[in-house]
This record gives sequence, structure tokens and C-alpha cells, in this order.
Amino acid sequence: MNCNVPTDIVFSFTGFATRGGGTDHHADGWGIAFFEGAGVRHFVDHEAAVKSPIADLIRKYPIKSKNVIAHIRKATQGRVSLENCHPFVRELWGRYFVFAHNGDLKNFVPELNGPYQPVGTTDSEAAFCYILQELRRRFDDALPMLPELTAAIGELCAEIARHGTFNMMLSDGSALFAHCSTSLHYIVRQHPFSEAVLSDEEVKVDFSEVTTPDDRVAIIVTEPLTTNETWTSFGEGELKVFIDGLPLDD
Amino acid sequence: MNCNVPTDIVFSFTGFATRGGGTDHHADGWGIAFFEGAGVRHFVDHEAAVKSPIADLIRKYPIKSKNVIAHIRKATQGRVSLENCHPFVRELWGRYFVFAHNGDLKNFVPELNGPYQPVGTTDSEAAFCYILQELRRRFDDALPMLPELTAAIGELCAEIARHGTFNMMLSDGSALFAHCSTSLHYIVRQHPFSEAVLSDEEVKVDFSEVTTPDDRVAIIVTEPLTTNETWTSFGEGELKVFIDGLPLDD
Repeated sequence: MNCNVPTDIVFSFTGFATRGGGTDHHADGWGIAFFEGAGVRHFVDHEAAVKSPIADLIRKYPIKSKNVIAHIRKATQGRVSLENCHPFVRELWGRYFVFAHNGDLKNFVPELNGPYQPVGTTDSEAAFCYILQELRRRFDDALPMLPELTAAIGELCAEIARHGTFNMMLSDGSALFAHCSTSLHYIVRQHPFSEAVLSDEEVKVDFSEVTTPDDRVAIIVTEPLTTNETWTSFGEGELKVFIDGLPLDD
Repeated sequence: MNCNVPTDIVFSFTGFATRGGGTDHHADGWGIAFFEGAGVRHFVDHEAAVKSPIADLIRKYPIKSKNVIAHIRKATQGRVSLENCHPFVRELWGRYFVFAHNGDLKNFVPELNGPYQPVGTTDSEAAFCYILQELRRRFDDALPMLPELTAAIGELCAEIARHGTFNMMLSDGSALFAHCSTSLHYIVRQHPFSEAVLSDEEVKVDFSEVTTPDDRVAIIVTEPLTTNETWTSFGEGELKVFIDGLPLDD
């Protein structure tokens, strides 16, 4: 989720978490990270999201954030354990970066000789460490301008995606970068807001009752979360950057 | 807390969290990190611990861990915000390191020219980044043996403590390093276990009912948490290393 004002994710998380062992087979742990200013609240659990007490807290406690990345895991590489749960968080240039990956990489053994070393054993964390290492190598000690950063992330994603499926999200708290390899969809909710009905739970919400006319929220997911809204598909190999609830090129 | 078997911290956290705006004035946020294998569960909140919904979850949900570091904040440097809440987490040598600091450093402006840059504005996070930078510089790409690591951490703590109060805890998930500048106490609970009574809440627990004879738990705090047990004071400038619920030199 990427928004122009801090927004809670209770509605979308309710549908999403149900896929973690409920309506879907992604039951090998889950996680979510909320930016709050420069800080991050990071929750991971190797219990299925559908029965995790921490997921239950998040379904009920409206943490407000402009950038949220959540993930439910179906283990492909790396055992079911806390250190292998996405999203992953690392610091670069005095900012936290949050990363989650959907997919499976084959024969991806990047040379990690810099300060970012995987703690767990997933292909995903290796990919995240590789991206940060290469960004730091290219831009040295300072955050570059957004076009340069976006171009670099696009090149690195394309390189990694040659090894398999690499649907991924990455955020530094101001922008959210989303790369589609096989499946990614987004929707922008803005004035006039209407009702949305979840695919995975018998839940609906009328956003016009809980928003102001200036609010704008982009939701990016592998599979659409609602049945009565029009979601836009990403193209294969496409990288989109979301800021303040809008994709940059729209 | 440092233990030989994964143990929950519900009892100690109940007393400790009460000091976050209840029986004490440390009301400017709080945080806790639990190692679980190589992974970390990290909870921070800029609400006072006494009224935080996330603290409430932890008081009730028995997360089991061999190494836990918790902190309640009285802001001295850096505003009340999420990125300034302890404990801080960073990765070094493919391990997560968790750090919390009690105290206040004056004119502490280390040269941070490596990969660890503070996200927030506290003296504490700067000290943590400095420690990791210098450890990485001394030992390059690999975790050293424990005596070398301990000696290096001791030297860095002594250097930092010249700038003010530096009671700190640091853990990589296997060992817990605790440095006392002005106030730190510990207790080792082991067989035969007895009853403990919290200082800050009308709560007591009979550990003999919830433990096995092989369990051993060290609790390290700035001020003792219970009224009916004998806590050992650290000496000024003393660094102790706890592994499997025991200080190494005992």
C-alpha cells in the first residue's frame, strides 16, 4: 500500500491474511512492515497468518502508514522459520528499506561481498541483499535522485528475474517500487470513493465514510483483493514506482 | 533476558512495562526484540508502554526466546518518534544484532563512514552504528571467536562511556553483552526455583511451577524488578557476557 496520507490497512489486511492458510495455501509464515516517518514497525510470524495472534492484533489495531508491505509465505526455498519470513528490513543511506518477494529463483547465487549478508536461507533475502549491495556500489554514500534510483532498481530486477519469478516490492518509506515478473495488479482509490467487497472474506467497506476527498491510496497485490473494483495488471518485466498513492508515469 | 532454553518474558515484561508511564516516567516509547533462532521479532511503539496495544499483546502472548532485549524510553536526545525507539536492529556478518541503551552521551559525534548510518537522531543509535562499524573494521567479514569479540566490545564501550552514561545491552542471538556505566543488576534463576514478587505490580509467580530443573534464566536490568530476590550489581565500567543463562566469568 502506498498513500498520500497515513492510512490504515485493516480492510486489505483482513482479506490478505485469510489467504495465509485460509482461502489459499500460503501458510508458511507471514509478515508486514509499516513505515511511520523514518521508522518501521515490522511484524513477522512463522505461524499461518490466519491463526497468528499478531495478525489478529493488526486486523484490529489501525496502525496508520503511507507505505506498507505485507507478505504471506509459501515456502519454496528455505525452511519455515522466522528468519525466512518476509518482508525483510535493512538500512541503506540512513534509511530503512523494506522488501518482499513473490516467486522462486533458480541458480541465483549472487556474489555478496559487501555489508549485506543474508541471515536466513531464502533466494529472496539473497536478492534483497544483492540489490542493496549494488545500489550502494553504484551510488556510494548518498541516496540518488529518484530517476537514477528507479533506473538502477529496474536493471537489477531485470537481471534477477532472469533466474525465475521475481514479483517484488521495495520501499524506502517515501516511494514504493513494484516489479512484476508474472503477476502484479494495482488499484488507486481516490475521490469519489465507493464501496469495496473483499474476495476472501464476507467483508465490505464504504471508503467514502472513512476518507476525506484528498485521500489517495494505491494497493498493489499479486492477485486482486476485491471483486467489485477494476484492477490494472502490470506488464511482464514492468517496474512501477508509486508515490503519494499514484504510479509515477500515470 | 538470556536463557539456556526458550523462555517467555511475560512476568518480567509485566513489571517492566509498568515503568513505561505507570510507576516511572519512561513514557516516550518502548520496544522489545526477541531472538527466535537466527530471526528476530522486533516491536517498537512510541506510545507509553503502559497503554500500548502492542505491549498488551506481549504481556499476554508467551513468545519464547533465549535472548530478549527490551527498553522503555525517557527521551533525552532525539524527539519522540518510532525511529528513535530502542532496541535497534542491524545485520552484521549475516546475523542480526540488537541493541538498547540507557543513559545520555554528550558531545558524542563518531565518524560514521561505513555502511551503518543512523536512521533516527539519538545518541544511542549513533553509538550502535559506531560499534558495528568498528567491529566490522576490526574483524572484516567474519564473526570472531567470543574472547576477541568480547574484548573489542569492551574497548568500544569504554571509549563511548567517556562521553556520558552508557548502560547498554547488545546481543547477536547467542550471547548477550551488558555494559554498566552507572546502574545495572542481574539475577540468575535456576533450580531450585522459588516465588518472585514484582516491585511494580501486585503480581507474583512461582517459577517452580512453570520450569524444569534444567532451565536457567538470567535477567539483566537497570533497576531490580522484584522485591524478594537478591540482585547482583555490576561494577562501574563492567562488561558481562551472558550465555545460556549464566554470566561467563561466574
